[in-house]
Amino acid sequence: MPKFNPMKHIEKYIEENKDRFVEELFGLLRIPSVSSLAVNKPDMYRAAEYWKQLLLNAGADKAEIFETEGNPVTYGEKIIDPAKPTILIYGHMDVMPVDPLNLWTSPPFEPEIRDGKIWARGAEDNKGQSMMHAKAFELMVSTNTLPCNVKFMIEGEEEVGSQNLGKWCEQNKEMLKADIILVSDTSMIAPDMPSITTGLRGLAYWQVEVTGPNKDLHSGLFGGAVANPINVLTKLIAQMTDEQGRITIPGFYDDVVEISAEERALLAQAPFDLEKYKQSLDIAEVSGEVGYTTTERTGIRPSFDVCGIWGGYTGEGAKTVMPSKAFAKISTRLVPNQDHQKIEILFKEHFESIAPKSVKVEVTYLHGGYGYGCPIDLPAYQAAEKAYVDVYGKRPVPVRSGGSIPIISTFEQVLGIKTILMGFGLESDAIHSPNENFALEQFFNGIRTIPLFYKYFAEMV
Amino acid sequence: MPKFNPMKHIEKYIEENKDRFVEELFGLLRIPSVSSLAVNKPDMYRAAEYWKQLLLNAGADKAEIFETEGNPVTYGEKIIDPAKPTILIYGHMDVMPVDPLNLWTSPPFEPEIRDGKIWARGAEDNKGQSMMHAKAFELMVSTNTLPCNVKFMIEGEEEVGSQNLGKWCEQNKEMLKADIILVSDTSMIAPDMPSITTGLRGLAYWQVEVTGPNKDLHSGLFGGAVANPINVLTKLIAQMTDEQGRITIPGFYDDVVEISAEERALLAQAPFDLEKYKQSLDIAEVSGEVGYTTTERTGIRPSFDVCGIWGGYTGEGAKTVMPSKAFAKISTRLVPNQDHQKIEILFKEHFESIAPKSVKVEVTYLHGGYGYGCPIDLPAYQAAEKAYVDVYGKRPVPVRSGGSIPIISTFEQVLGIKTILMGFGLESDAIHSPNENFALEQFFNGIRTIPLFYKYFAEMV
Repeated sequence: MPKFNPMKHIEKYIEENKDRFVEELFGLLRIPSVSSLAVNKPDMYRAAEYWKQLLLNAGADKAEIFETEGNPVTYGEKIIDPAKPTILIYGHMDVMPVDPLNLWTSPPFEPEIRDGKIWARGAEDNKGQSMMHAKAFELMVSTNTLPCNVKFMIEGEEEVGSQNLGKWCEQNKEMLKADIILVSDTSMIAPDMPSITTGLRGLAYWQVEVTGPNKDLHSGLFGGAVANPINVLTKLIAQMTDEQGRITIPGFYDDVVEISAEERALLAQAPFDLEKYKQSLDIAEVSGEVGYTTTERTGIRPSFDVCGIWGGYTGEGAKTVMPSKAFAKISTRLVPNQDHQKIEILFKEHFESIAPKSVKVEVTYLHGGYGYGCPIDLPAYQAAEKAYVDVYGKRPVPVRSGGSIPIISTFEQVLGIKTILMGFGLESDAIHSPNENFALEQFFNGIRTIPLFYKYFAEMV
Repeated sequence: MPKFNPMKHIEKYIEENKDRFVEELFGLLRIPSVSSLAVNKPDMYRAAEYWKQLLLNAGADKAEIFETEGNPVTYGEKIIDPAKPTILIYGHMDVMPVDPLNLWTSPPFEPEIRDGKIWARGAEDNKGQSMMHAKAFELMVSTNTLPCNVKFMIEGEEEVGSQNLGKWCEQNKEMLKADIILVSDTSMIAPDMPSITTGLRGLAYWQVEVTGPNKDLHSGLFGGAVANPINVLTKLIAQMTDEQGRITIPGFYDDVVEISAEERALLAQAPFDLEKYKQSLDIAEVSGEVGYTTTERTGIRPSFDVCGIWGGYTGEGAKTVMPSKAFAKISTRLVPNQDHQKIEILFKEHFESIAPKSVKVEVTYLHGGYGYGCPIDLPAYQAAEKAYVDVYGKRPVPVRSGGSIPIISTFEQVLGIKTILMGFGLESDAIHSPNENFALEQFFNGIRTIPLFYKYFAEMV
């Protein structure tokens, strides 16, 4: 491979092709591939076909549409030398619904550019961000600078929980072999503050049902003598966390890995304005586990949240009833080393064990997922770091997100491959909301950064 | 007044008039005087008129329909001698709705007799029980055995909270002057086990609203760092009662009068089968304040019940949300000496004071009422006791009900008159439910017992 100025050929190619890049993204954005709506099922196939052509046009050796029990997956690859490292790109072609439609300034499936941004459903999540990879791949092939093998896996069910992708990966393990999975489906702190998401939390989610008497009772005639299931439920939930903001389920923290002081210091570089945070939520004080900052509380520590609760009379005015049943939906967010299947049992056993005999308790597991952690000494992390420095002129900050993308940990479990999350989105992109948008500058910076990641990664591995 | 065998003239009069008594009750039962339904407003006036004629026919000096801001009140009186004691009868002409109609064996407003019982809405509550008083009054007038003055106050809003009766009493204090108020709107333990209700609990009822962040948040991105209003609400509620089943609100028990060992022993005579009680509710264990029996827990002790709770996602499956708000409807039942207006403030202040600064808390008082206690050494109690012994051959058991009839304590507050609760209903009467009924035997036993009460009461006072 010839020596080259890392930026020069990239700038030239982008300059010559930028309008076409945007037009190709617009073509994809015009397909209303809403995965949660049955009416858009044909659009999923149109999007899969669009991606197949994109990859072939960009220089893939082959591209193919795979059926699953749900929506199709488009797979494509270019193998320049089996001895060289392989990067597997993951993205998704499906988008969220557009309601409420009346809040959109321009129609969600008629993309347009205003104020230096592309406006459309999927402009960022994930059509815009995955298009950066198609175009970066094309750029490297066209400029003869592709330093390694590349594979693309673009699915159609990310917004509905990637129900079929795990199984599809299982069935296509051999084909998907790679050294790293590269995903752009996260955001960075600010246009002048690049960041890399190094952690995602796992999840365990239950529904609990507490049954007291076999029918609703008069709260006067029975109040004080029969266990009220709402009273009991509040006591059970209240006992799940302590005064220190820690979860009291025995064994819950057993697999929680304490983050090193060094990484905590790095994480602390991410700018965070506590006053602005409180103002934006209209709260007087934040709250959480003693000994950790707000960023750490969501990034590196587990959490316990009741997502819903109900029971008894909830209408206007007063009704003096002691209900027969009370319910809650309870979720814990887990840190990477915690096993949601183990937590599932620990919670259930503990909840049942502390319930008084005066009620019956039923705990149902609704779903769960593993967290994901990307060590900052991983070669892919260091390659990404160098690529961002070249384009943004700044070392990116490692960030741990409090959210969950369970498919990322599924990749690690099923394929045994780590993922590097190089997100170019911004908080202002309004993903999942009306007026979703993606800054053109971020779109092109993504196309600038990705080939540099390939280069540094190929050199390192 | 001539000497007479306490029972003989009573038996004779009942025997000669019993069919007419039942037919007159049927006439009242055929009026669908459902106070909660606007469509039945004219029926309230028909019922008031029916009562006016009943009283005049029975021998009242005068009877009159009084307007209130709501439904009318029928008032009637017979003053035989201003120097003699006066008994004020309270009853209500309105009834509860009849839904679900399809569960009735015979139409609710077409009374009929089956199995020795009258079946109709209001058969017991309260048309049947108040008709006993009209007929007992007629009996005494007709047999020239009325030993004192008598006043009737029959209202039309008991089933919707007696909203206007307190004010009406206030406006007619002079007219309503009496030595005792006599009410048959409760039940007795069993046909062979007479009882007198000596206590009713008071009530204080609030709605609480806990607000965390100003909008629903993603439970992953914010969970662990922002106070979740449901988590907080469960902790606040859980803290309201302790391990001993006692209410922890400071000052809550200040005005609770400990019942004497003697009265507790009397109360314990009421038959109570704990195993049957648990079986009928399908609970493994009862629950409540340590140191008190089940009967005492509802009868002589206050209680704390959440009547409703809601917040967050309550639909199918899982939604990972941290809601902005959580709500609960909270009720305490109070014992006679407790002041619900004082408790209102104590709860509000305590609830607000223990809430963390990370949330906002709003406490709204929905309603309240005083409890009522009838001392067993009250002359009216002793007169009632003797009357029951004459008719049932057994000393009645004093019973404290866990329920509330706030108007009874209003009478005490506004008119300064105690009430004696001589109920002839049975648990099986299905009041407020489909197939309401009243045993003919109880109806006639009421008419037998009431004149004896008059006799003994007039002799004592």
